[in-house]
Parts: sequence; structure tokens; C-alpha cells
Amino acid sequence: MEFSLQKQALSNALQIVSKAVAVRTPKQVLMGILIEVHEDEIVATAYDLELAIQTRVPVGEETGLRVHQTGAIVLPARYFGDIVRKLPDTEIHMRVDANYMTEISAQSVEFHLHGIDAEEFPELPNFMGYESMQIPASTLGRLIESTVFAAATSEVRPVLTGVSITSDPTHLTFIATDGLRLAQHRVPQADLPERQVVIPAKSLSELSKILPEDETSVEMVLTPSHGLFVIGPTRFYTRLLEGTYPDTSRLIPRSARTQVVLDGDAFLHAIDRAALIARDKDNHMVRLEVTGDTLTVTSHSPEVGNVSETLHALRKEGEDLQIAFNGRYVIEAVRALDAAEIAIRFNGANQAFVIERSGDPSMLQLISPILWRS
Amino acid sequence: MEFSLQKQALSNALQIVSKAVAVRTPKQVLMGILIEVHEDEIVATAYDLELAIQTRVPVGEETGLRVHQTGAIVLPARYFGDIVRKLPDTEIHMRVDANYMTEISAQSVEFHLHGIDAEEFPELPNFMGYESMQIPASTLGRLIESTVFAAATSEVRPVLTGVSITSDPTHLTFIATDGLRLAQHRVPQADLPERQVVIPAKSLSELSKILPEDETSVEMVLTPSHGLFVIGPTRFYTRLLEGTYPDTSRLIPRSARTQVVLDGDAFLHAIDRAALIARDKDNHMVRLEVTGDTLTVTSHSPEVGNVSETLHALRKEGEDLQIAFNGRYVIEAVRALDAAEIAIRFNGANQAFVIERSGDPSMLQLISPILWRS
Repeated sequence: MEFSLQKQALSNALQIVSKAVAVRTPKQVLMGILIEVHEDEIVATAYDLELAIQTRVPVGEETGLRVHQTGAIVLPARYFGDIVRKLPDTEIHMRVDANYMTEISAQSVEFHLHGIDAEEFPELPNFMGYESMQIPASTLGRLIESTVFAAATSEVRPVLTGVSITSDPTHLTFIATDGLRLAQHRVPQADLPERQVVIPAKSLSELSKILPEDETSVEMVLTPSHGLFVIGPTRFYTRLLEGTYPDTSRLIPRSARTQVVLDGDAFLHAIDRAALIARDKDNHMVRLEVTGDTLTVTSHSPEVGNVSETLHALRKEGEDLQIAFNGRYVIEAVRALDAAEIAIRFNGANQAFVIERSGDPSMLQLISPILWRS
Repeated sequence: MEFSLQKQALSNALQIVSKAVAVRTPKQVLMGILIEVHEDEIVATAYDLELAIQTRVPVGEETGLRVHQTGAIVLPARYFGDIVRKLPDTEIHMRVDANYMTEISAQSVEFHLHGIDAEEFPELPNFMGYESMQIPASTLGRLIESTVFAAATSEVRPVLTGVSITSDPTHLTFIATDGLRLAQHRVPQADLPERQVVIPAKSLSELSKILPEDETSVEMVLTPSHGLFVIGPTRFYTRLLEGTYPDTSRLIPRSARTQVVLDGDAFLHAIDRAALIARDKDNHMVRLEVTGDTLTVTSHSPEVGNVSETLHALRKEGEDLQIAFNGRYVIEAVRALDAAEIAIRFNGANQAFVIERSGDPSMLQLISPILWRS
């Protein structure tokens, strides 16, 4: 194996795949990056058995890639990435010598790094014969960001640590819930095969970091055990979670005994300030009182003090209300909605309430109240 | 106590003093910020008994400060700072009610925070009657940055965790050493009183963060137990370290058996790359071979691999040499010098070597070699 290319091209490829390198494992090869050299491209792959990222650098003027001899090697990611990053910004030459010792050189600098036989690197999941769907990268990014934070972090019900993805011929729906709050985002999308899978929230968080923020088309393929996302030259593989995702549709109230429409930022800042006083409590309890079109946000801690703030609803329908909730949940929900105006639908102090973008039911945040009696 | 002022003025003051707030201590009052309200200014103070920072906000249009009633209170820094930071960017009103409960309000937001009696706040050290000296802020900043990193981090010899500051009628000298390397910076400074003190390195690191990078004159006052630095409206107090600082002057070789002059950046990058291979070893061992005007930097790890890089000296005098050293020490020393050209003076493989700015003896870095036989 022997090739030359511009430092920047190699450095970019290593940075993309590095997110899938195993951090701690007794299997050395999983802490490495597989470099495969073909006649017209090199392929870099990292795979921690949960997710894999693979990207390609083609031969050409832009990358400076010239292949002298095909082959493959696995190099320890911690050293390989930093070595390339610290090399002069010029042409890099790589060659595997005897016993997997790999030379990485540029100008008068010459590294030799112990490699591992590429045969030891695990096989990637196979997606041949499965139907694919196309989604714009920015849409996929928004679907992830608006739901992924609501997934469970505890492993009590493993399936809840994932995001449920459902496709039907007309819509794509992402749902995440940890049992105390739920985030749902549903977008119209034509010609989808009917599927329902659960992808680990951690995998989707990593995927969102490498998605471009534009309309680049992302190809998505789902098998019974794995998901694949193809973004230009980069392939992102993830294991799916096993188990049946709960039917969450019956949790979402259709009607409302109280509905308020509010300035999104003003509400977010008020809850953020109130949550500050409650931040050392597990439940970050914030109280909200709706009287006429006036909202009073309060929070109280015997040790710290208290805070009170009034806001005015842009519109209010239905009865007055007092309710308490976890301020962190509401902050994350309102941030995810990222809307100038939000609508909140309540059904009394003991029922979960819904926060949406005003006039836009595609995205929905459902939050359980804290049951309190003042 | 009651006053109003612009959020930004209060927020800035709290940020400056926050570095001296105690992090963990059973004495609640040390985790607080003292606010003293006088007729023409408010004074904010934090003091963890090692260092104190105090700053003033004067009455006036710029700060918006209007004093309604003088007085004083101590407020818990963790909450007070975040509350002010998260308030709307407008006028803030503060008032102490009964039982030290303090109202902090802006627009429709009203916080109440439990305060502590200002009488419980410790007295600051007294500097009355001691002579002061003046140093430009940028000079003081450079003196600190070029020496502080070389102080010991272990408490085996507590006096070495500080930086020795010596003033005589013509010069000001900062020295730090952990026993394996030494950093010294000496600047001409007129009309100084003769003094020698040791200031904790941690205090100087905090001081350097609040120094402006300009010629603002900083007033320095030293007592037998404390140091005071006055920067505009801000006063920075630090405890001094007890004990006799070692006489380091005899450690510094005057002559050289080998002297090389090098491009500073090229040398820094070469050592940085070599240290990469050695980074999991305690001593970060890098080897240097000087043959004629060629320098070869190498490093080797049985598990990882090796690296070799050649550089050419701009000038070389004296004999050829092989030496080994801690790469981290050399990287920190060369970064501190921040010079286009550096000069290194060696006296054989077993003697400490000196790195200086080429042609500028004011700053000096001395590094012990690692004794090895290849």
C-alpha cells in the first residue's frame, strides 16, 4: 500500500470518521481507522460496532491523491489523526512496510506507526437489496434536533434511548420520549416505503454533526437490524434498537381546556430565569399561573430564594390555570421549536400539556406536569 | 441598601471578582460576593482567603448607578452572577429587605435571594504605609506568562509552587522552577524599592486574566505577607508564600560547548510532533542530535512507533551533541519565548541547557536533560 495526497484531504476524511472510533475497548482494532487504497480512491472507515462512518477521497487534482500501490491497513486513531493534523500543510506520503509498520511522511518529517492487519477489521453491515428513500439534509437535521434530546438516558427501557422513525407513503415522523416528556416531528415526504425503526439517540446526535445544513439529498436505507445514511462521499451506519416502541399517539391530547399563544423568546427567558432558582433540585420545578391573559412564572427554593415574572399572552382561550413542571424540559422543548410564537395547550394541572409552533402542528412537544398542591 | 444601575455595569463587576470566590468551603460567606453601597459608588469584593479581587462601579451616566440607600450585603456568587447575567439588558434595581433577603429586579422580573450579613465577610489585608511601584500592564502580563508555567504543581516544596519576584533599583525579575526546568524573565524598570517575595503561581495566573493588554499602569504593593495589584478600578490581593526561595543564579551556565540559532516556529513544530509519539510516557522523551548545522529530532515508543525530522540551524557554534529531554518542557519554554529566532546553549548531554530569544538575554528558559545512553 502506497499513496500520496494533500494533507487537508486526508485530515478532513479522518476528522469525519473519527466520531465512530471506539473509545475504550479491549479490541485494539476498533480503536483504529481502516485505510483501504484502491486504484481510483482511498476509503477511510471507523466502526465501534454500534456505528460506523466511512468516507472516500477520490484521485484528482483537488485532493492531490496519487495511488502507487493498492492495499489496506488499520492505524490507531488517537495517533494517526494527531500526526496528520500536526504535519506541515503540504503533500503527505504513506506506505506500509514490513509487519504493518506504516510510514507517514511530509517534507523532512517521517513517522512510523505500528498498524494492524486490515483483515482484523470488522465487516460493515450489508444493505444490498433494501429499498432506499431520499431526504434533504436540512430536513433530516431538523427532525433529529427537534426530537433527540427527549430520548431516555437511562437504560431502564432500552428502546426509549432511541428515536422512533416511521415512514409511510406521505410522511416521515420522528418521535422520542423518556416517559416524562415527548417530542414529535412529522414532515410531508413523498414516495416513502412503509417502515418503523428505532435508532439510538447517540447515533443520531453524531449523524447530525456531519450533516450539511443545505438541501443535499441524503439517502436513507433501513434493514431489520441497521440503518444507513449516505451523504455525498460519506456513509453513516448505525445499529437499530430492538424491542417494540410504545404507541404514543394516544398520549397526545386533541383538545385543550386552556390555550395560550406567546412570544417564544420571552417565554424561554422567563422559564430559564425561574429554572435558575430551582437548578439544585432534581425536578427543576417551575410554577406557572395563567389568569386572564397574564402568565406568572415563579420558582422557589427554601435555601436560595425565589423569583417571579409576569408575561402577557398574545392570545388566550379557555379557563385560568395553575400548573408546575420541570423547567429544564420546557426550556429544551421551546428551544427545539425555535419559533417566534408558540402555542401551549393545557388540560388542567394534572394532565400533560402540549407546546407547538403557533399555527404549525408538524412539531409537537408534550410535557408531564409535576403534581403539586400549594 | 438600595440602588439602581445598568445590567452591563453590574455584570462586568461580578465577572471580574468571580475568580476570587471560594469554590468549596464550609464557610458559606467565602462563596459569596460582598456588595458595599456608598454614596458615590458600589464596591464588589470576593475573597477566598488566598486571593481577593475588588472592583468599583462609580455613580454616573455610563454605569447608570444611582444610590438610594447605602449599606452592604453578601450574596451567594453562583446564583447572583447567573441571575444578573440572565436578566434583561436594562436597568437593574437592588434592595435589601428584612433578614438579608435581597430583591434583584428588572422590568417584570423580580428575584429574592437569601443574603448573608456583611459583617461576616473577612477583612482584606492592609497595605497602608507600604511603598508602591508602577509597572505597565502588558509588561507585567509578559513577565507572568513567560514564567508561571514552570512553577511546581506538587506541594513537596511549597515555595516552588510560587513565582519569585525580585525588584532592585534598576530591574524587576520573575523566576519560577519546579526543579527540572526554570523560567526567568528580567526587565529594566526604574526606581524600584528592593524587595524579594514569592507569589503563588495560581494567583498570578488569575491576575494575568484580568490584566489589560496595554500600557495601563499597574500599581504593585508588597508587604511581608501579601501582594496588592491595582489596575484602574480593580484591586487584586494575594497571599505570599512563606519560605526561602532557592538561589537559582548558580544553576544558569554562563558558557556553552554547543550553541545553535534556529527558527522558533520550525523548532516548536518539530518538538511538538516528536512529543506526540512520547505523549503516553511520563517523561515525554524526545532526542535531539546536532551534527554540523543539522538537527535531527527523534522520538520512539515500542508500542506506538517512531518519528524523525531534520532541521537546519541558522547558525551553529561548538561541538556536535546528542541529548534527550522532556518534550513538553521544551514546547512550553519555546512558546513562552514567542520568538522568530531562538538560541539554544548546551554544555553536553548531562547538563541543563538554556533556550533564549536570539540576541535577547532578558528572558531565559533552563531545562534539565533526561540522562540516557543509546
